[in-house]
Amino acid sequence: MLIAKVIGTTVSTIKDEMLAGRKLLILRQTDETGAAFGKPYVAVDTLDAGIGDLVLTAHGSSGRQTAITKNSPVDAVIMAVIDHLEVGGKVAYRKE
Amino acid sequence: MLIAKVIGTTVSTIKDEMLAGRKLLILRQTDETGAAFGKPYVAVDTLDAGIGDLVLTAHGSSGRQTAITKNSPVDAVIMAVIDHLEVGGKVAYRKE
Amino acid sequence: MLIAKVIGTTVSTIKDEMLAGRKLLILRQTDETGAAFGKPYVAVDTLDAGIGDLVLTAHGSSGRQTAITKNSPVDAVIMAVIDHLEVGGKVAYRKE
Amino acid sequence: MLIAKVIGTTVSTIKDEMLAGRKLLILRQTDETGAAFGKPYVAVDTLDAGIGDLVLTAHGSSGRQTAITKNSPVDAVIMAVIDHLEVGGKVAYRKE
Amino acid sequence: MLIAKVIGTTVSTIKDEMLAGRKLLILRQTDETGAAFGKPYVAVDTLDAGIGDLVLTAHGSSGRQTAITKNSPVDAVIMAVIDHLEVGGKVAYRKE
Repeated sequence: MLIAKVIGTTVSTIKDEMLAGRKLLILRQTDETGAAFGKPYVAVDTLDAGIGDLVLTAHGSSGRQTAITKNSPVDAVIMAVIDHLEVGGKVAYRKE
Repeated sequence: MLIAKVIGTTVSTIKDEMLAGRKLLILRQTDETGAAFGKPYVAVDTLDAGIGDLVLTAHGSSGRQTAITKNSPVDAVIMAVIDHLEVGGKVAYRKE
Repeated sequence: MLIAKVIGTTVSTIKDEMLAGRKLLILRQTDETGAAFGKPYVAVDTLDAGIGDLVLTAHGSSGRQTAITKNSPVDAVIMAVIDHLEVGGKVAYRKE
Repeated sequence: MLIAKVIGTTVSTIKDEMLAGRKLLILRQTDETGAAFGKPYVAVDTLDAGIGDLVLTAHGSSGRQTAITKNSPVDAVIMAVIDHLEVGGKVAYRKE
Repeated sequence: MLIAKVIGTTVSTIKDEMLAGRKLLILRQTDETGAAFGKPYVAVDTLDAGIGDLVLTAHGSSGRQTAITKNSPVDAVIMAVIDHLEVGGKVAYRKE
């Protein structure tokens, strides 16, 4: 899984029928302190994550293992909202 | 999923029989403003997307979860045409 | 799918029994004009593609969706031989 | 599989129900000597690995092939704790 | 599939039970001449490949399509030992 920050939302009228009602958020991968890098990607949100939250995203067929994403053409899902990350015995990130 | 821009079309006479009648478009990944970067890739279009449209593409086995791509040797599919993207409370991209 | 150019062939006596009689070609990814870049990879050819041809390759489990590659330990297959590519309303590549 | 070093832990209250009770560790890929590089990723630990351990991680659908990760939205799992690595006839890494 | 060179071995006492008795080799991807580049990865060997051999590795779920790797948490397998590679009408690599 990747550590990522929720940075935005997408709106699409024309989409695969399996996606009706799904929330698709824009994320950027971060390091263990929550610092974002790289280009944005989009994941289905099943946990009501908010803008600015640090989350874990599962990719590929693993992204279809939730009740909401089963059999959908989605390849990334938010599987957890991070409370805190600990590295080297210290808190590297804590949700505000 | 990746945010990508439709930039072109492919024509192939010799192809796997499962692909007969499928529209294969050329795309380039973009950032959240619609600016393209990186090398082109090809995805099946099931939504009648047009050249210049910003779309979301699902990859890997997730690309085979639509009625049209099921059991086909395709690993990328256009799953949504983007109306607009919102980042940091502002519209970062809007379809013209 | 990736756009790629066929650049060579592989010969292996010792291989998984599911690969007996399979043609394994060496390819390099190209851009939309057919210009190759990056390191070579190997894909199963089920379409009798020739050296120099531009092709589309499907990857991952999608590479096992053809009659020939089913249940084989292969993760890339040539799914189409490209006739031409059109970008920006112009022909970017045409097979000779 | 990738060679990786365990560098930290994650804590999440809000998560997919299939992840209840799962230990999610932060790792960084290493070379054959155990030197870390690149950005962190997160994997499920089923082997009680410790901080500082060098491990092997399996990715994608292969990460769901353990008794603990089956049917979960996880795409990386620690499948082995490395005792030592041998390269060029010499021990390149040995667990302390 | 990737062209790769076998450079070493791994030893792990603590591992997933599905891996008991499996040989896990360290590889580095190579180009078509056998020149290695990039960081090492680990694949299951089912063909008794030797150190220094050039091999083809299949990745992802395709790595679980051999009799030995079925249902195992492994995402890369050696599927062929290369005898020679031919590029541009010339032998680019030949096994010694």
